[in-house]
Amino acid sequence: PAATPGRTDETADPIVGVVMGSDSDWSVMEAAADALAEFDVPFEVEVLSAHRTPERMLAYGKIARERGIRVIIAGAGGAAHLPGMLASVTTLPVVGVPVPLSRLDGLDSLLSIVQMPAGVPVATVSIGGARNAGLLAVKILATSDDALDAKLAAFAEDLAEQVEKKNDALHESIAAKASK
Amino acid sequence: PAATPGRTDETADPIVGVVMGSDSDWSVMEAAADALAEFDVPFEVEVLSAHRTPERMLAYGKIARERGIRVIIAGAGGAAHLPGMLASVTTLPVVGVPVPLSRLDGLDSLLSIVQMPAGVPVATVSIGGARNAGLLAVKILATSDDALDAKLAAFAEDLAEQVEKKNDALHESIAAKASK
Amino acid sequence: PAATPGRTDETADPIVGVVMGSDSDWSVMEAAADALAEFDVPFEVEVLSAHRTPERMLAYGKIARERGIRVIIAGAGGAAHLPGMLASVTTLPVVGVPVPLSRLDGLDSLLSIVQMPAGVPVATVSIGGARNAGLLAVKILATSDDALDAKLAAFAEDLAEQVEKKNDALHESIAAKASK
Amino acid sequence: PAATPGRTDETADPIVGVVMGSDSDWSVMEAAADALAEFDVPFEVEVLSAHRTPERMLAYGKIARERGIRVIIAGAGGAAHLPGMLASVTTLPVVGVPVPLSRLDGLDSLLSIVQMPAGVPVATVSIGGARNAGLLAVKILATSDDALDAKLAAFAEDLAEQVEKKNDALHESIAAKASK
Amino acid sequence: PAATPGRTDETADPIVGVVMGSDSDWSVMEAAADALAEFDVPFEVEVLSAHRTPERMLAYGKIARERGIRVIIAGAGGAAHLPGMLASVTTLPVVGVPVPLSRLDGLDSLLSIVQMPAGVPVATVSIGGARNAGLLAVKILATSDDALDAKLAAFAEDLAEQVEKKNDALHESIAAKASK
Amino acid sequence: PAATPGRTDETADPIVGVVMGSDSDWSVMEAAADALAEFDVPFEVEVLSAHRTPERMLAYGKIARERGIRVIIAGAGGAAHLPGMLASVTTLPVVGVPVPLSRLDGLDSLLSIVQMPAGVPVATVSIGGARNAGLLAVKILATSDDALDAKLAAFAEDLAEQVEKKNDALHESIAAKASK
Amino acid sequence: PAATPGRTDETADPIVGVVMGSDSDWSVMEAAADALAEFDVPFEVEVLSAHRTPERMLAYGKIARERGIRVIIAGAGGAAHLPGMLASVTTLPVVGVPVPLSRLDGLDSLLSIVQMPAGVPVATVSIGGARNAGLLAVKILATSDDALDAKLAAFAEDLAEQVEKKNDALHESIAAKASK
Amino acid sequence: PAATPGRTDETADPIVGVVMGSDSDWSVMEAAADALAEFDVPFEVEVLSAHRTPERMLAYGKIARERGIRVIIAGAGGAAHLPGMLASVTTLPVVGVPVPLSRLDGLDSLLSIVQMPAGVPVATVSIGGARNAGLLAVKILATSDDALDAKLAAFAEDLAEQVEKKNDALHESIAAKASK
Repeated sequence: PAATPGRTDETADPIVGVVMGSDSDWSVMEAAADALAEFDVPFEVEVLSAHRTPERMLAYGKIARERGIRVIIAGAGGAAHLPGMLASVTTLPVVGVPVPLSRLDGLDSLLSIVQMPAGVPVATVSIGGARNAGLLAVKILATSDDALDAKLAAFAEDLAEQVEKKNDALHESIAAKASK
Repeated sequence: PAATPGRTDETADPIVGVVMGSDSDWSVMEAAADALAEFDVPFEVEVLSAHRTPERMLAYGKIARERGIRVIIAGAGGAAHLPGMLASVTTLPVVGVPVPLSRLDGLDSLLSIVQMPAGVPVATVSIGGARNAGLLAVKILATSDDALDAKLAAFAEDLAEQVEKKNDALHESIAAKASK
Repeated sequence: PAATPGRTDETADPIVGVVMGSDSDWSVMEAAADALAEFDVPFEVEVLSAHRTPERMLAYGKIARERGIRVIIAGAGGAAHLPGMLASVTTLPVVGVPVPLSRLDGLDSLLSIVQMPAGVPVATVSIGGARNAGLLAVKILATSDDALDAKLAAFAEDLAEQVEKKNDALHESIAAKASK
Repeated sequence: PAATPGRTDETADPIVGVVMGSDSDWSVMEAAADALAEFDVPFEVEVLSAHRTPERMLAYGKIARERGIRVIIAGAGGAAHLPGMLASVTTLPVVGVPVPLSRLDGLDSLLSIVQMPAGVPVATVSIGGARNAGLLAVKILATSDDALDAKLAAFAEDLAEQVEKKNDALHESIAAKASK
Repeated sequence: PAATPGRTDETADPIVGVVMGSDSDWSVMEAAADALAEFDVPFEVEVLSAHRTPERMLAYGKIARERGIRVIIAGAGGAAHLPGMLASVTTLPVVGVPVPLSRLDGLDSLLSIVQMPAGVPVATVSIGGARNAGLLAVKILATSDDALDAKLAAFAEDLAEQVEKKNDALHESIAAKASK
Repeated sequence: PAATPGRTDETADPIVGVVMGSDSDWSVMEAAADALAEFDVPFEVEVLSAHRTPERMLAYGKIARERGIRVIIAGAGGAAHLPGMLASVTTLPVVGVPVPLSRLDGLDSLLSIVQMPAGVPVATVSIGGARNAGLLAVKILATSDDALDAKLAAFAEDLAEQVEKKNDALHESIAAKASK
Repeated sequence: PAATPGRTDETADPIVGVVMGSDSDWSVMEAAADALAEFDVPFEVEVLSAHRTPERMLAYGKIARERGIRVIIAGAGGAAHLPGMLASVTTLPVVGVPVPLSRLDGLDSLLSIVQMPAGVPVATVSIGGARNAGLLAVKILATSDDALDAKLAAFAEDLAEQVEKKNDALHESIAAKASK
Repeated sequence: PAATPGRTDETADPIVGVVMGSDSDWSVMEAAADALAEFDVPFEVEVLSAHRTPERMLAYGKIARERGIRVIIAGAGGAAHLPGMLASVTTLPVVGVPVPLSRLDGLDSLLSIVQMPAGVPVATVSIGGARNAGLLAVKILATSDDALDAKLAAFAEDLAEQVEKKNDALHESIAAKASK
């Protein structure tokens, strides 16, 4: 995937791989890419199917670290095997995103990803929680990157400020309604 | 697995592979082997882990048909990926057995096995239903084997007779209790 | 069902029966027929209700094999008894499709089909997974049909190629968006 | 089932059929028989398997009413098809008892029994609720039997008195403990 | 409820009570009334809330039998207490309809109705299964009414014929599509 | 929150705090405020996030009682920690409202709120049951306020009357339809 | 229940009613009584069945407040109607304890209690959470009782100290094990 | 926690914090500590309760990074708030372990931990999966530690070898049984 387009600095080599079983998962998984881009973390995006391209999938996982990848984010739905199978062939942390399908609200995806056997963990986030998967990758990278950690601290402050603003907006909206 | 011991005619080449993620699954999966033995279907048994030996697992699936295997029975628990991953590399029908673990009563195993994406089916049986997996393999083989089909017909008659006997035994037990 | 219309070669006798409890299930079950047609497997379609036409249903199952049927695919929803009841009167493998109804997302259908007692297996596919039911029937038939098996191998390669194409399309779409 | 032993007046013809898929269900289903015996309702007990003796099962249902049966109580577990299949061949009310198996706590049994399609109802009681199935049969019979209805009224009064006694016993037990 | 309008012969006294917790349940419960009307069973309809009019609800149940009611059909949703509470004050059989609310797909309604304690059964039908509740009431009444029983037998034959017609229609539709 | 706008008498100090994790929860939580307003209970509204403003959230809880608050109503969705965390820092009763998110129908919210460990209870209401949360707060306040208690008694009578009116309306609607 | 024994000051009139459907629930509900006793809150204990003694149950609820009761704690299992029915006839806050039965782990009890319709809230605690029900009653009473509130503050401090002690004990146990 | 005993090199400062809500969780969480010890990763163990010591808990999270901690592993059961609340006050990755309690098999714990809102991820492992939590922490640390990464690679090889040995042992056991 030499020319894999990321939406960040094209000259930087990707250090996070965002992979998914089908391009239809992109509507969910794009939020992971967006979070990485917000933190200027270079990433690549790949469609890799555990069930339709099993060998290419394993090959991706096996050479990911030597290619410079540090964290893999994998999204899949239903009998979701992609995150767990990647975790079985790499020493890298794999973040799993349960993609909800049209039935069962993603409960099957969640259980297929989180209930991994001893020895092969997958760092599972919420159903459809691709944005959190991106943020978790940033947190992992920040364990050895103080600059990135500082960005995370600023991000947390910003989250808190947004709550304040929402509180003010709600109060204004209630007051406006009451004064009518 | 040249010398894989089956419990049927050792001179016969195995035509069913009974595989499982851990030897601890044998207590559940043995019932599949027993059912095959009852029908004199030669089989082999292998411990193969989707997560701990992913490449050996895929290799097993890829050459299974040319080795003479006609049906694969795969049991796994939790985030159970073994049946689906084998199905992804073979044209053979794969029968999946959801092995129940100590929690969730096998519901996670069931969903991880049955909810496969379009293109890669797994023939799923009940939670812990290894005996039925063996019987399903026999039914599949019998689609092109009239002698085996005749055995299945006899087996079904025997099941019906057992119900009759159970009915008689229950009546006797109730009558005995009533006459006290 | 002498004149049962299949969408394949009308001169061929059907070897797969695609049955369902109501014609309203056809919107789900048609995908099974489509898969069979893709592989040129002759099939027939029947509306058979376990609960509304129990005797005709059992009669269908009992003579299916002698009529030349090799695999039965049965779809049903809710307290879905059709696949299991057919399995109780035939030596043929029965593939069960849990049809989702307007509530419970097909979980009731799945459990009613997959949790069969020892002795009478149903090869269950995913909720609404009629396409996979068709493919599973093909896999079963291919255990004794090398030409069909070769088609399955080509089909699997095609699936893999489609993933590659989806990957390329996604990359192009991302690149296009990034260059704006 | 001419000589079916019931535990009530042997000279009376049975008017309730208590049927179950296996004699192992008797430990649950006996409570239905006990309830009928308490109300002196003559009944018969049969082991009938929807999956192992489908034709005998249907035959039982078809002639039940002309044999004098007025209510059928059917217990089954897992993919529990017995109550629904009986209901499909008789005009009699069928009371279904979801028998819990070793896994899923009877949730599969409950859904397989209660979620019947329009046209073929099963009167479902609680998981393992065989005693209530017996009482429901009595209530059904009492709709046209004032003497039986009077017994039900007395039974309800007795239930209320038992609660009073339990209340007294609990108060005594607490008081005794407090005075130590 | 002297002037309770039923949609059947106004001169007939109602023998089935169709009750529900809110008039918003009528969209579901109307199917019970329709089924009763098809069989010319006189019925009445009442909005009765276990939680908002507990005493009127109990009063209804207590005098139902002496008013001539033979079966009560009660529909409720969520923490659905109406069927069970009515069952606690009458010797009549109570048929419970789990009404699905906007969340949980009626699973809460089902469990709140079906899981009654020993001594106080409710004959539970499927989630939203009001039509089946009406039919079950007819089946109960038919245990002592041969004319009604004959109607049920004809109804069952009609159900079977409809399946045949649906089968024919499906075949025609497939053939028409194939011939294009 | 000196100038927190409530929709009741602005001169009165709030005695109920209605808090939620995001202003998007207001569409659900407004019903709690409406119920309080109906009973003229002064309240305040705050957006407080357990996860985005943890310290402000705890600070709110810690000084709530000394500020005059008597009951806290907290709504949250998903991994809903707000009610439980507030309960951990205040002696006040906390009423928890499971807010349903777009998936799982609020089952995750419910379990995250209701399954509190021994020592730190949360008074949980139904999924999305904000109106009931408001009413529960009124009931709690009325344990020491006879005037408020009298209002609750009148409210209950009004609920009963509404059921009567709904019953009448349903009867009229059925009669009108029947007379056409 | 003039002479109802509580385990607190017998001269004090009870202000909390601890009620349950069966004396077998006492093993769970005793923890509610113990919590009340720890805070010297006078209480009474009653066995009251929604289904077996519906009228006595309603009578209890209707006069509870005038008898001096301020909070009712009600425990029930399965189709648990006791808390909700009591809430329907009293203005007092009712705390509901889902009592787990031998199957479904109390999920049926929880949903039957918590999913109350608008207008009639039940303050639900965790499955089997009787101790928390007692503490919630204390919190409710403390909204108008500063002395009780002070006890709750001390109780919370004690909980925190216990965590510290557990932490120390764990460290000692680990250190002891390490030094072997 | 200056003198917190770890079971690894006492002179090393801990870089992983293993925290849990109660010392009773240690039986589950010890496996996380064991995994860290196997990889010679220095760690500390703390009992910290989100609900009983909320402020000490937040204080732990807030200064964890400056104390040198790089990953926090937090286990909790039921309404499990500890992992999420820690994640809300630290930039460090938090690994959450759903501890199963005596009911619901840990499903409540899992949902309370994994379903975090956008902005505050928790890396969730399987129910009771403390060993995997330890291994995930090692994988996270190894993203910037090639020596640790090499150990992980060796560990994975060892897992694969163990599967081979289990396979051999199973074959021997079957062969021994067959030769009897």
